[in-house]
Amino acid sequence: MTVYLHDIPLEQAQAHFHRALKEAGLDRVLRVEQIQLDENAVGRVLAAPVWASLSSPHYHASAMDGFALRAKDTDGAMPTHPVTLTVGTQAAYVDTGDPLPDWANAVIPIEKIEALDEKGRPMEDVRHPVSIRLRTALTPWTHVRLMGEDIVATQLVLPGGHVLRPADLGALAASGCVQIPVSSPPQVAVLPTGTELVPIGKAVQKGDIIEYNSVVLAAQVKTWGGNPKRYPITEDRYELIRDRVQAAADENDLVLINAGSSAGSEDFTSRIVEELGMLLVHGVAVRPGHPVILGMVRRSAASEAPGQFVPIVGVPGFPVSAALTGEIFVEPLLARWLGRSPFSPVEVTGILTRKVTSPAGDDDFMRVVAGQVGNKLLVAPLSRGAGVITSLVRADGIAIIPRGTQGLEAGEKIRVRLYRAPSELERTIFAIGSHDMTLDLVAHFLSERNRRLVSSNVGSLGGLVAMRRGEGHFGGCHLLDPETGEYNISYIKQYLPDMPLKLVSWVRREQGLLVAKGNPKKIQSLADLAREDVSFVNRQRGAGTRVLLDYHLKQLGISSEQVQGYDQIEYTHLAVAAAVLSGRADCGLGIAAAAQALALDFIPLFHEQYDLVIPKAHLEGDLLEPLFDLMYNENFRHEVAAMQGYDVSYMGKMVAEF
Amino acid sequence: MTVYLHDIPLEQAQAHFHRALKEAGLDRVLRVEQIQLDENAVGRVLAAPVWASLSSPHYHASAMDGFALRAKDTDGAMPTHPVTLTVGTQAAYVDTGDPLPDWANAVIPIEKIEALDEKGRPMEDVRHPVSIRLRTALTPWTHVRLMGEDIVATQLVLPGGHVLRPADLGALAASGCVQIPVSSPPQVAVLPTGTELVPIGKAVQKGDIIEYNSVVLAAQVKTWGGNPKRYPITEDRYELIRDRVQAAADENDLVLINAGSSAGSEDFTSRIVEELGMLLVHGVAVRPGHPVILGMVRRSAASEAPGQFVPIVGVPGFPVSAALTGEIFVEPLLARWLGRSPFSPVEVTGILTRKVTSPAGDDDFMRVVAGQVGNKLLVAPLSRGAGVITSLVRADGIAIIPRGTQGLEAGEKIRVRLYRAPSELERTIFAIGSHDMTLDLVAHFLSERNRRLVSSNVGSLGGLVAMRRGEGHFGGCHLLDPETGEYNISYIKQYLPDMPLKLVSWVRREQGLLVAKGNPKKIQSLADLAREDVSFVNRQRGAGTRVLLDYHLKQLGISSEQVQGYDQIEYTHLAVAAAVLSGRADCGLGIAAAAQALALDFIPLFHEQYDLVIPKAHLEGDLLEPLFDLMYNENFRHEVAAMQGYDVSYMGKMVAEF
Repeated sequence: MTVYLHDIPLEQAQAHFHRALKEAGLDRVLRVEQIQLDENAVGRVLAAPVWASLSSPHYHASAMDGFALRAKDTDGAMPTHPVTLTVGTQAAYVDTGDPLPDWANAVIPIEKIEALDEKGRPMEDVRHPVSIRLRTALTPWTHVRLMGEDIVATQLVLPGGHVLRPADLGALAASGCVQIPVSSPPQVAVLPTGTELVPIGKAVQKGDIIEYNSVVLAAQVKTWGGNPKRYPITEDRYELIRDRVQAAADENDLVLINAGSSAGSEDFTSRIVEELGMLLVHGVAVRPGHPVILGMVRRSAASEAPGQFVPIVGVPGFPVSAALTGEIFVEPLLARWLGRSPFSPVEVTGILTRKVTSPAGDDDFMRVVAGQVGNKLLVAPLSRGAGVITSLVRADGIAIIPRGTQGLEAGEKIRVRLYRAPSELERTIFAIGSHDMTLDLVAHFLSERNRRLVSSNVGSLGGLVAMRRGEGHFGGCHLLDPETGEYNISYIKQYLPDMPLKLVSWVRREQGLLVAKGNPKKIQSLADLAREDVSFVNRQRGAGTRVLLDYHLKQLGISSEQVQGYDQIEYTHLAVAAAVLSGRADCGLGIAAAAQALALDFIPLFHEQYDLVIPKAHLEGDLLEPLFDLMYNENFRHEVAAMQGYDVSYMGKMVAEF
Repeated sequence: MTVYLHDIPLEQAQAHFHRALKEAGLDRVLRVEQIQLDENAVGRVLAAPVWASLSSPHYHASAMDGFALRAKDTDGAMPTHPVTLTVGTQAAYVDTGDPLPDWANAVIPIEKIEALDEKGRPMEDVRHPVSIRLRTALTPWTHVRLMGEDIVATQLVLPGGHVLRPADLGALAASGCVQIPVSSPPQVAVLPTGTELVPIGKAVQKGDIIEYNSVVLAAQVKTWGGNPKRYPITEDRYELIRDRVQAAADENDLVLINAGSSAGSEDFTSRIVEELGMLLVHGVAVRPGHPVILGMVRRSAASEAPGQFVPIVGVPGFPVSAALTGEIFVEPLLARWLGRSPFSPVEVTGILTRKVTSPAGDDDFMRVVAGQVGNKLLVAPLSRGAGVITSLVRADGIAIIPRGTQGLEAGEKIRVRLYRAPSELERTIFAIGSHDMTLDLVAHFLSERNRRLVSSNVGSLGGLVAMRRGEGHFGGCHLLDPETGEYNISYIKQYLPDMPLKLVSWVRREQGLLVAKGNPKKIQSLADLAREDVSFVNRQRGAGTRVLLDYHLKQLGISSEQVQGYDQIEYTHLAVAAAVLSGRADCGLGIAAAAQALALDFIPLFHEQYDLVIPKAHLEGDLLEPLFDLMYNENFRHEVAAMQGYDVSYMGKMVAEF
């Protein structure tokens, strides 16, 4: 079994790991404990089936407030022919849930009788009459909850492996259960390693990496029913890490070590696993997350079970790789140890909004956003970078491009494993078009109004093209027509000639040059972009800001070749600002709010009109209502106006209707 | 606002309650607290949006282990024309994640260089060469994670109201967040009341009701993010309950009182709510769960906020009503107080398997099971009784029959709010036909094999008819043909003439009379059913056991009119046994295992053949594989054989193929 496999497909890695677990006797419920039947049992996993020791009800019970009686005694009762029964011998008052007297086999509800006193006169106190009069014949067992109606003793109440929900606790109690056999939470050590790591809350220097993978992994373990223990950061020294792995293995059921799993200068994990036990797998052909290590470590003589194997997973350091490694390898293992089924996400099929490429050798776990637009479920790929944790945060799900595939074209069908309930996708507003800083604010305000905003920043023109394909609920647009000086209208006529839509004013905003604080290069205007000592960061083709730039460069007679960095592109105003802040470029064209956000200097150049293009088809339901409400919400307008360079006085006004 | 509404529709009750909450300032996040960013934050709700205070990466970072360099210095490098760079001034070793030196703007991976010593000769230690040789030109920023690639400072990381998942914690940490503003869990008092109640774990007498509604309600509150506090059982005395409600209101944000909400003799809740505050709603037109009370109680002078209103929900006593009241009224209130969206279940549309009737005045919350059989999603109603908690346990979802509807026919489309992920329905095996005691055991064994068994006990004939409509994966069948003495075959030919199917042997089992322990009525054979002093409990029409009974009664010349209780019917062997045990009948015809389960006496009469009818269409996928595996599983066969009256020697053998 100490076969060592390198860079193998996912299923092979899982099977190999599982075989090793099985040989070590670790492929089943680890430990069972008995717990009290109370609200804290919710979410625990039954370690054994529970059979009823008591029937429910455990006696024939009245289902109504009324009088218990013998059905036979009511034979012949009719509206015109009442029957009178003596309380005590023929009838007895019962509340709902009370047991029937032995001689009774039916109940008549209190509102169906006439209460009579000792002289046969009607009386007020309907619960304590001397006799009762009734005008309906009853069949046996009317309004009686029969013994065992709900649960019959000896019956299976719940199978082993069941994850307890609130109502289950009621059924267990009703069937006479007092203590519940549940699987104990597996103890999972999470070991962050790396000299460059600093804990959350410490001030960071250049080169420091905030250590949060351990928090994500521990939170995953907790969510999946394990008991995580985070260890302090261990610096990159072989002996220190080795000793910590041994100590963690001695005290836990599973060790997750992060990172040190690739082949870099300070990546010790594979050597340590070999020294302390056996290395099973090094490298799995999934992307992101290639350098996964799977192995087993032996418990030391100092432990309670010397020689016992403890599985170890070497988790890659990039945060997306780390989180996906948890989902792929840790969740199924915890499921097995708890005795429950592994999580199986809801899968849906959608339409890919743009072409993606993928390495043919790997199963590629692509993070995507999804939204229902009209009758299409759209699937838009997010950043593919393994370091981009926000791609997991923003993801609605994972689409797997299987190995053997080089990629997929836009418009192709793609299967998505959802992170969210499909119903959430129905309250998703899909914005596609130009990026604006106010969209973050919109997302925040909408989330308070039971909507979710997903923005795909493809530029103004890209938005119009996508809208033509029916791929967005609305799009921000700020395209200047050099001929007329008018915004958007001529472009809409050209790109969306047949689509009924509304063009609604959003903001007027200031465009200008973003430069480093203090403007060290003394940049004054777009003319400076032709200077040899000035580098620029541009926006992508089809962005309104790029259209604006090209228009003015042409006016100035500056060719794109003269601009250093013309081909260096970013997709949002903030990304341009970040490029300037980091010194990657001396300046970029963008909006004032982006400069303000990163405390850059700003050279104002133009005012422009930023409108929303909204196909009328999407105005039919109530999906976009909260968006329109926002336009006249004082709070919201105030917050937008407070951002530098924004004028909200036209917000919500109709610009044109098509 | 102190309007008091009686027996009103659900939406009106919710709106009225919400208005009162709003007037009392209780329709928003209750309290906010700051918590540490660690794994315990998972599941908490953000009380405010979080904006990034740090970019991620917060510097230009190497994306590879390799050498940082100036892209310009690699101009012209080609496989045939290498470029050599001096380490120190032109190249510097970097690990993944290390910051780039200020002068560098690209990284070449370690495996793409040749390491050279001071004399220009290749050297082993690739990380500490004197110079490096490379044969590729790099463009600027190759293999560099640009500052802000993931998160740009000032950007929105997560909106308020977001429920934190593991990856979110990583994004928060990466963006410089150290403490998180989350909404505090609302404090919820759960007050069980009732003199007949006994706590879980106490031995029960006839008439005692095990108090578990408080556990179910508390578990619901916990699941939904509240902090439940269960109070001890209060007996039915007005002053005691009133004082406890006041004390609970003084210390909690919400009071749930159970039960005492109907109009019975000891139902004090509405009077208490009126005395301590105001009654808003008494009675909501939903079934089950009619007698819901909604109101507000004022905090007393002894509390920290005298006069402050605290909402109170009077929860009906029947367990299904109680749990549904939690879902309908408590979950949305907690969602509001936590600032998150209320849960919105996945909805699917299925086909109703049988006719249901419903009171026209109420919204009827019907518990159903659902399963995918071929291309049909089948929806089968469960017990409608408000006391049947197992109907909630077994339910895959809730189908609402809206008021104004008297019911629905079999085959009609019906919308279901799922309790389970739709993917679980795809691994559901839908059994429809005769009930057998081994089906519980099958359910248990299948649950360990990633399958879920849903049994609809409609009798052998009912099963054949349902199978003809494509409404089951398999059905148990034991129909004796009086002409031939053969089981099942002639019935299948008659009812499923055109369906390709397999008839597989399951068990041989013993049928006989179930009688009370000691057989007080001295019943010997079916002939005794004609006795006037013997009462019988029968099975439903179409049940194999009923066919058997009718056949033998005819042979004996006994008419159904001669049998007391011939029309008293039950749907399972266990239910027949329970009827005998409780004294509701003196005897019933059924299998030995049912007598054994409830320790009844058993008079053996016949051996019969119980087979499984399996349409070949369902043998195509792997859904039924685990069922076939079971038939030859030693453990399983052993457990079946251990039940009284079962012979497994033919299990799995093919009886006939059609």
